[in-house]
Amino acid sequence: MDTLPRLEQTIAARRGAAPGTSYVASLHARGLPAIAQKVGEEATEAVIAALTGSREAVVGEAADLLFHLLVMLGARDVSLAHVMAELDRREGTSGIAEKAARKDA
Amino acid sequence: MDTLPRLEQTIAARRGAAPGTSYVASLHARGLPAIAQKVGEEATEAVIAALTGSREAVVGEAADLLFHLLVMLGARDVSLAHVMAELDRREGTSGIAEKAARKDA
Amino acid sequence: MDTLPRLEQTIAARRGAAPGTSYVASLHARGLPAIAQKVGEEATEAVIAALTGSREAVVGEAADLLFHLLVMLGARDVSLAHVMAELDRREGTSGIAEKAARKDA
Amino acid sequence: MDTLPRLEQTIAARRGAAPGTSYVASLHARGLPAIAQKVGEEATEAVIAALTGSREAVVGEAADLLFHLLVMLGARDVSLAHVMAELDRREGTSGIAEKAARKDA
Repeated sequence: MDTLPRLEQTIAARRGAAPGTSYVASLHARGLPAIAQKVGEEATEAVIAALTGSREAVVGEAADLLFHLLVMLGARDVSLAHVMAELDRREGTSGIAEKAARKDA
Repeated sequence: MDTLPRLEQTIAARRGAAPGTSYVASLHARGLPAIAQKVGEEATEAVIAALTGSREAVVGEAADLLFHLLVMLGARDVSLAHVMAELDRREGTSGIAEKAARKDA
Repeated sequence: MDTLPRLEQTIAARRGAAPGTSYVASLHARGLPAIAQKVGEEATEAVIAALTGSREAVVGEAADLLFHLLVMLGARDVSLAHVMAELDRREGTSGIAEKAARKDA
Repeated sequence: MDTLPRLEQTIAARRGAAPGTSYVASLHARGLPAIAQKVGEEATEAVIAALTGSREAVVGEAADLLFHLLVMLGARDVSLAHVMAELDRREGTSGIAEKAARKDA
């Protein structure tokens, strides 16, 4: 299960390519608001697929959302490892208490 | 980097708990639209953090988004492994061509 | 200020047109999830414009959001007048009390 | 149908109130990202209600979305009249051509 770290590396490598030759490079050329817009769109698609679509549609939209989330993290110089460490940290607490702790953080 | 598979298991285990004792169980008790609503909220928070927040805020919101995405996938009986396999499959193609292919799928 | 009621009528009139001849008709032909997706996209664009764009950009995105919200209301057979009546009804209460009342409703 | 202009005035009047006494004032005290977050949340709720809820639920969520959109416009010093003028301006063109024109603008 090293899909996401490998995808993160692929995205980082493509970022510097010529915009016309790479989707990631073209997103970066359009700037952070355009990247954030894609995350919002893909999240809406994932939500709608979860409520009305097939399981295959949910898989596809979740993959789209994860891909664009990684692009957005990269654009803010946030590593996937940092996000995973945060999830690991939270794993210590649990249930409603965990949620409350997160919201207070 | 086995954070997400482990988190997926934790979520699956909590799903059947009494709603008052687990955040995951209480979300499930409220139903799929409530779970989808959380994904939408956390995606908006991640977008806003990316545009206006600190890198720590981006980490926290990305973690929130991933957590609730896993809850939503579980509620639709979609495994994380399935989503990762889809991302792996796409890794073969690249750049704008890949994006076009995805949109046509 | 009869812009929205007039727009509501225009949208209702276009709904039955041939999909190739009207944007509203083509949205309807794609179904309610596609219409809802547009509302989600335009809301994200409005949020991002509010945080990072010019006032002209905010105007344009707010107009886009209102337009697609009217299309979505029409697709669910909800009249604009019904929504306005609900806003009027709430106008009686105010401040945090009003918000609490709404959330409990 | 003067609901929205009246609501816009109410919101503007409340903006300067003490945060503890008015929901609008408390939102403003939390800043533009918090206001934008509410717009994103309410848009998601409206989308989910349109796909899974009753017509009453759609009415309520559309009202919530319009309310928070007005708060966000006010926070950016954008008047409702400006947005309505933009919608009126677009009313001249129609169908897919209008949409294309908007997207190019």
